[in-house]
Amino acid sequence: MISKFKFNSDGLIPAIIQDAKTKRVLMMAWMNEPSIRQTLEKGMMCYWSRSRQKYWVKGETSGNVQKVIHWYVDCDSDTLLFEIEQTGGACHTGFESCFFQELDMSAEPRTVQEKPVFDAAETYKPSA
Amino acid sequence: MISKFKFNSDGLIPAIIQDAKTKRVLMMAWMNEPSIRQTLEKGMMCYWSRSRQKYWVKGETSGNVQKVIHWYVDCDSDTLLFEIEQTGGACHTGFESCFFQELDMSAEPRTVQEKPVFDAAETYKPSA
Repeated sequence: MISKFKFNSDGLIPAIIQDAKTKRVLMMAWMNEPSIRQTLEKGMMCYWSRSRQKYWVKGETSGNVQKVIHWYVDCDSDTLLFEIEQTGGACHTGFESCFFQELDMSAEPRTVQEKPVFDAAETYKPSA
Repeated sequence: MISKFKFNSDGLIPAIIQDAKTKRVLMMAWMNEPSIRQTLEKGMMCYWSRSRQKYWVKGETSGNVQKVIHWYVDCDSDTLLFEIEQTGGACHTGFESCFFQELDMSAEPRTVQEKPVFDAAETYKPSA
């Protein structure tokens, strides 16, 4: 099926990442064909970094890996959905989800009630 | 906050649409600034059609409208998440979700167990 996926002009396809148990949406990321193949081979989410122009196993630095439970392609074959088991939190800020900031109907931010689930400064500090 | 959103070079930002009650991911679509403002004003999802180059209220043809319950922006301000109340189904094929096709770890399609929730041929037939 991968050959039928509609990658954009940069060879990328968006992937929505959802917690398999709670169904909370954790993040969206971009994948290319090699990162999809590596994800399936390892059973762990692997993305394409547009800024670093390389693919990477999610959690290789933080330990916050994502184990694939189910995955789906949409009706247009241009978006993927992965249900995963998250170790730690998905967001580089330390929150469980990248979507921790709710907005109101005037597009103003609501007060964030939840707390980070890990210490991002500690997790991502440069090694000595 | 809308002025802080990171739209791509086409002025678009991806929006993930999730059922507010079941948390099922229903679809992904693209929005531009006018479609976001119209969504907030009406309280109903409104998208930008890349193929038709116009914005449209989801459900204006099918009746399958999407009422906004909550919405969020991600940590990078480049993806939106809407929790909505769906009338009928979200997918133009008649399924509840655009992500009805599960794949296995060899990227082969699994048998679809669910049934469409509406008759797409009937819903979208040209008016007489």
